[in-house]
Amino acid sequence: MSDPHKPLRVGIAGLGTVGAGTVNVLRQNAAIISARAGRPITVTAVSARDRTRDRGFATEGLIWHDDAVALATDDNVDVVVEVIGGAQGPAADTVRAAIRAGKPVVTANKALLALHGAELASLAEEYGVPLGFEAAVAGGIPAIKALREGLAANEIISVSGILNGTCNYILTVMREQGRDFAEVLADAQAFGYAEADPAFDIDGVDAAHKLAILGALAFGQPVDFAALHVEGIRRITALDIAFARELGFRIKLLGIAKRTADGVSMRVHPTMVPEAEEIAQVDGVFNAVVAEGNFVGRVMLMGRGAGAGPTASAVVADLIDIARGRLTPIWGVEGYALGKLPALPMSAHQGAYYLRLMVRDRSGVMADVTAVLRDAGVSLQSMLQHGRAPGESVPIVLVTHETTEGAMMQALSAIANLDSVLEPPALIRIGAA
Amino acid sequence: MSDPHKPLRVGIAGLGTVGAGTVNVLRQNAAIISARAGRPITVTAVSARDRTRDRGFATEGLIWHDDAVALATDDNVDVVVEVIGGAQGPAADTVRAAIRAGKPVVTANKALLALHGAELASLAEEYGVPLGFEAAVAGGIPAIKALREGLAANEIISVSGILNGTCNYILTVMREQGRDFAEVLADAQAFGYAEADPAFDIDGVDAAHKLAILGALAFGQPVDFAALHVEGIRRITALDIAFARELGFRIKLLGIAKRTADGVSMRVHPTMVPEAEEIAQVDGVFNAVVAEGNFVGRVMLMGRGAGAGPTASAVVADLIDIARGRLTPIWGVEGYALGKLPALPMSAHQGAYYLRLMVRDRSGVMADVTAVLRDAGVSLQSMLQHGRAPGESVPIVLVTHETTEGAMMQALSAIANLDSVLEPPALIRIGAA
Repeated sequence: MSDPHKPLRVGIAGLGTVGAGTVNVLRQNAAIISARAGRPITVTAVSARDRTRDRGFATEGLIWHDDAVALATDDNVDVVVEVIGGAQGPAADTVRAAIRAGKPVVTANKALLALHGAELASLAEEYGVPLGFEAAVAGGIPAIKALREGLAANEIISVSGILNGTCNYILTVMREQGRDFAEVLADAQAFGYAEADPAFDIDGVDAAHKLAILGALAFGQPVDFAALHVEGIRRITALDIAFARELGFRIKLLGIAKRTADGVSMRVHPTMVPEAEEIAQVDGVFNAVVAEGNFVGRVMLMGRGAGAGPTASAVVADLIDIARGRLTPIWGVEGYALGKLPALPMSAHQGAYYLRLMVRDRSGVMADVTAVLRDAGVSLQSMLQHGRAPGESVPIVLVTHETTEGAMMQALSAIANLDSVLEPPALIRIGAA
Repeated sequence: MSDPHKPLRVGIAGLGTVGAGTVNVLRQNAAIISARAGRPITVTAVSARDRTRDRGFATEGLIWHDDAVALATDDNVDVVVEVIGGAQGPAADTVRAAIRAGKPVVTANKALLALHGAELASLAEEYGVPLGFEAAVAGGIPAIKALREGLAANEIISVSGILNGTCNYILTVMREQGRDFAEVLADAQAFGYAEADPAFDIDGVDAAHKLAILGALAFGQPVDFAALHVEGIRRITALDIAFARELGFRIKLLGIAKRTADGVSMRVHPTMVPEAEEIAQVDGVFNAVVAEGNFVGRVMLMGRGAGAGPTASAVVADLIDIARGRLTPIWGVEGYALGKLPALPMSAHQGAYYLRLMVRDRSGVMADVTAVLRDAGVSLQSMLQHGRAPGESVPIVLVTHETTEGAMMQALSAIANLDSVLEPPALIRIGAA
């Protein structure tokens, strides 16, 4: 490791899209990477279950392990790249084995870090090895480096953004084409922008994994996935997107980690973002991360959050840091300096709300609804109802002034119980990154 | 330097906005900076001409040097922060003296780096000391770190952006308020967004200094300011901004460094940017940097490009890197690995053009103009002429298809010589970051 003339020998555990992409980046850009790393970075070993599949690169000369843990302890491997994925099983075993063998690890595994990052960081610190995870958040965007090193002079007030390209793609197509969620999801699956099992993406879990990592870095505390409030985009309808447009908003799945005087709030949910906000313009599969520091103000980074090239670019950036000996504590500060701010529950959230009801069009409905809001202490900013259809189901949209989540939830359950309200109300928080 | 428990002692040469801002960041965020740097970073010495001025921080306990070179060689200083400014004189002397004394240097001085960066980088490499300059480009945006480390796995195809907040502010206000350049400049000076002598900003020199630095980093070659083509915004009129809006463009002062098969093109000039482009939305004093890599694709970074807080944030980020021992060669690779791609002259540029003429409104004018364009081999994409005013001066706007700068300049000089063309034509290149 410390001899600057020796090649850095990399073992890649997992040869899916990102693993194969990493081999390709290291080979295609070998000359420039070697100059920037100060020495060659070469893949010496790989592991994957199926040896026969064509992965788009030549495997001659590579040591092949069926067992990723065996790769991690192979003497021909200086650094282990873990791109198996999954929070448990072989991915976790491989990372732990590599650290215990004193080998630096680079991983793109956000689930692993969000759920076991605190333990793995302690282990890596105990063994004195770096654990790189630039690729785990926002793909090719150097968000981890920017937050942990570039903005290190600042107390971070908030970090937030569009952290899942699948959701952003679906919401963008729904808006541009006026189509409904299920249909656009099916297309996204056909085009390879969404997984066959899309739950991790569309239920907000993937974005929440990334936000948990960003929050730990921003606020210098152990990653704590359980503290997050998480909602996905399954219930967003073409109707709500049309109303958002009329009101001057765009609906984005945002992850928001914010520090207040009382503690830290971390949440992932669909958000009505004023369309003049920069982040409202980030469309398609692009990701964006916005960090606010007490001296730098707001900095936004934007780029591709997934895909072989962008993700492998981030993996190799970590390898170059390791080759150069550029070391940074995993959460920005050593373990002893980590803090723990109180986690604010979602019920403490304050903000404005968009509420869309399907009601029977008859006199007195609005009086009932507004009475409930008044009784809960929620004040209205505006109301939309288009056309008339006596006796039929029609949408009513209400936009509140800033209120508390507690008051809003109380009002929501009373409204849902009104006779004239025909479907469960749709509620979307108004906000920005 | 290498004892991790000893404070890193900083000497600050120059106590203007950035120097005073750096003291304030180091003091106000001392606890968090110390945790992230692994040891305290303390200001021990300062230099400035006038000791009596109130700079907004307590100077008790600081060693005061009248001569910045003396500060650079003070044994109580481990690292020198040069924020005097200017490409010659005390700034250059201070940086050279510090390097020769074996001390790391952090500077916000883009002029110094653009004009003497090649020499200073060689000197720093010879003495084995880091030379940090995150603050020299795009203020608080960690553009240098992102390009040099975050995207290090990529061959960089282009780097470009909005690099001068003063120009972007003036162009934004001109567009929003329909006012002319001179008037908006005077306001910007009154508000402190433009210097009393605004030439460096509005003539594009400041943006060009920053682009020269980004280009050197992106393409791994010694900084070469003389290779840049530079135009400013003095000749942009409210009329051109109105036509831009009609054509679906926004006028931005862009710096663009691009690699082609033939070499590298680096240029700063007002650009008609399609308004759907992300960078067209970057308004006011904000800066943005867009880098394109062969694997990562396009990454954009946005934030405040000037001001005490953002610039000091970047200075202190460099100090934290130095305190942690995170070292990177100045241009991303060691001196022996620097290359030198041919610099493409502006005459080799290819692109589309916006051309606005003031002509006498009489029959045959368009025939004359289009004949000249045809003879130069330039083909037209569209033409605008509003209203009629027989015998009077009226504007005509022409938008060309892609052509060469050489052909366009030939056509331009012939058009300027036509009897019916009453003023020097306005030419603005069409493009994007």
